[in-house]
Amino acid sequence: MDTENICDGDFENEGCKLRNPNLQSLSSDKLYHLGLGTETHDLESMFGDLKFVCIGGSAHRMKNFAQYIAEQLNIPTDLSDITGHAHRYSMFKVGPVLSISHGIGSPSLAVMLDELFKLLSYAKCKNVTIIRIGTCGGIGVQPGSLVVTNKTVDGLLRPIYEQYILGEVVHREAILDQNLVEEVKEISREFTHYETVIGSTMCANDFYESQGRIDGSVCNYMEADKLKFLNKLHDAGVRNIDMECTTLAAKCYLVNIKCVIINVALINRLKGDQISLSPDKYKEFETRPQELAALFIKRKLQTKN
Amino acid sequence: MDTENICDGDFENEGCKLRNPNLQSLSSDKLYHLGLGTETHDLESMFGDLKFVCIGGSAHRMKNFAQYIAEQLNIPTDLSDITGHAHRYSMFKVGPVLSISHGIGSPSLAVMLDELFKLLSYAKCKNVTIIRIGTCGGIGVQPGSLVVTNKTVDGLLRPIYEQYILGEVVHREAILDQNLVEEVKEISREFTHYETVIGSTMCANDFYESQGRIDGSVCNYMEADKLKFLNKLHDAGVRNIDMECTTLAAKCYLVNIKCVIINVALINRLKGDQISLSPDKYKEFETRPQELAALFIKRKLQTKN
Repeated sequence: MDTENICDGDFENEGCKLRNPNLQSLSSDKLYHLGLGTETHDLESMFGDLKFVCIGGSAHRMKNFAQYIAEQLNIPTDLSDITGHAHRYSMFKVGPVLSISHGIGSPSLAVMLDELFKLLSYAKCKNVTIIRIGTCGGIGVQPGSLVVTNKTVDGLLRPIYEQYILGEVVHREAILDQNLVEEVKEISREFTHYETVIGSTMCANDFYESQGRIDGSVCNYMEADKLKFLNKLHDAGVRNIDMECTTLAAKCYLVNIKCVIINVALINRLKGDQISLSPDKYKEFETRPQELAALFIKRKLQTKN
Repeated sequence: MDTENICDGDFENEGCKLRNPNLQSLSSDKLYHLGLGTETHDLESMFGDLKFVCIGGSAHRMKNFAQYIAEQLNIPTDLSDITGHAHRYSMFKVGPVLSISHGIGSPSLAVMLDELFKLLSYAKCKNVTIIRIGTCGGIGVQPGSLVVTNKTVDGLLRPIYEQYILGEVVHREAILDQNLVEEVKEISREFTHYETVIGSTMCANDFYESQGRIDGSVCNYMEADKLKFLNKLHDAGVRNIDMECTTLAAKCYLVNIKCVIINVALINRLKGDQISLSPDKYKEFETRPQELAALFIKRKLQTKN
């Protein structure tokens, strides 16, 4: 078992640092799941101006976000799906903002990130920030609250992303930029009709057993066991559970890209397991991370100009 | 660490056996990611006649398969997406066949399966077979060959699905029905213009490092290390790598549902990493597992009638 730390943390002045010497001997690179490639696309002219990549599970949400940020930044967009023809992820570009879906769970996110990082590198993008705008189950927070993640842990409460590489267990440190967390928290004060909490996020590999739900197809424990576990998480500073956070933090850290994770809590898991929001309430909640992300982006662009 | 085996293997005469006593105290159950529920939908009348559930990564492929099986079985269909409004998975029903996407990777599949199993149970379906029609990287097999999986292993070559439940490591046996493997292999003899291989499948949690590719965003090994690993896999009987197999095998086994995994090899990984098939060749290859699944379904329905 091996813990690696090969990122030098110089976020500000550098682009995406691919950590793969083998890429230098590739004559061309096909980003298979994105349906893009160095031979078929002029990636620098398509993406060279990117400063923000917003990511989230569903294609539907990320299309909505693209529409929303276009209105907020007053940038015309045709909302065409750049990667739709590859049938895996959906990607929309609005000026300096990319909005892309990652599906559900760490492996789906990992595939997208590997190709996104190569895209950012080939396109010579500098100083890009990734913002995850997701949904989650909260722990001891009111439904509708936002959780900005300052620490990510796996299902055994370890701050790592575990991979099996060439038959060996490899642990990558899942570290987030704390200044960015504070910056986002500061901006969140403008939204006063709900709470924004800073806390740890646990990354789970399914929705039911791995999140301690008692309503899956298989469950060998009872309500009391669940509550004991969720309270243990709460005591450890965990305020929500998602299915991507350690992977996002570790993979971004490895290639020198800053990221911030903003999830809205759809429920308080200390009160129950089933999500039974009305469609209107769901839509309102789902929009909150998007509003915060958009305000963050606007402030950053104002500071820059 | 705990190995569980709570399935009694009586596949023929029983339906989906949910292993969760807590469900009995639920007054209603919302299948959140499918956008279906016991209170809002008459699941038995909608799904009670199901005998086959075909699953695959992309919504696009599963819609194509629904169209194809409708033609093969001569059943009219409007190809409406039953779960599209929930924005996570796509589901199409054609008579006794359900065609549903599971996204990329084990967690995305696990979420779908948990809700599918509850759906099958609530709908009182009996003797259902799940067929995964996927794509994969082959190991020592010609591109375009089909691999029917007889054994699934994780990235450490263990025949298990590992979960973290309430902070503990739980191992579920990832076991496949060998009779079903032989049955599908027998039917595959009718397709003579390509090979169908029986072998082990390794389940990976990303597309690049975990599959030993040297063209990801991060890679700390070289071509020779990769080949050593792939040859080790080949010596152990592994003929392909996908991102879902152990999870599918273990979860189905737990709830007494038979499943078979048919993947088409898009490349031979001993020869390279990048997938550079022409669109026409890709479409032809992607269709092969669908043809085999459709023929299997037709034979089964003929035997029954």
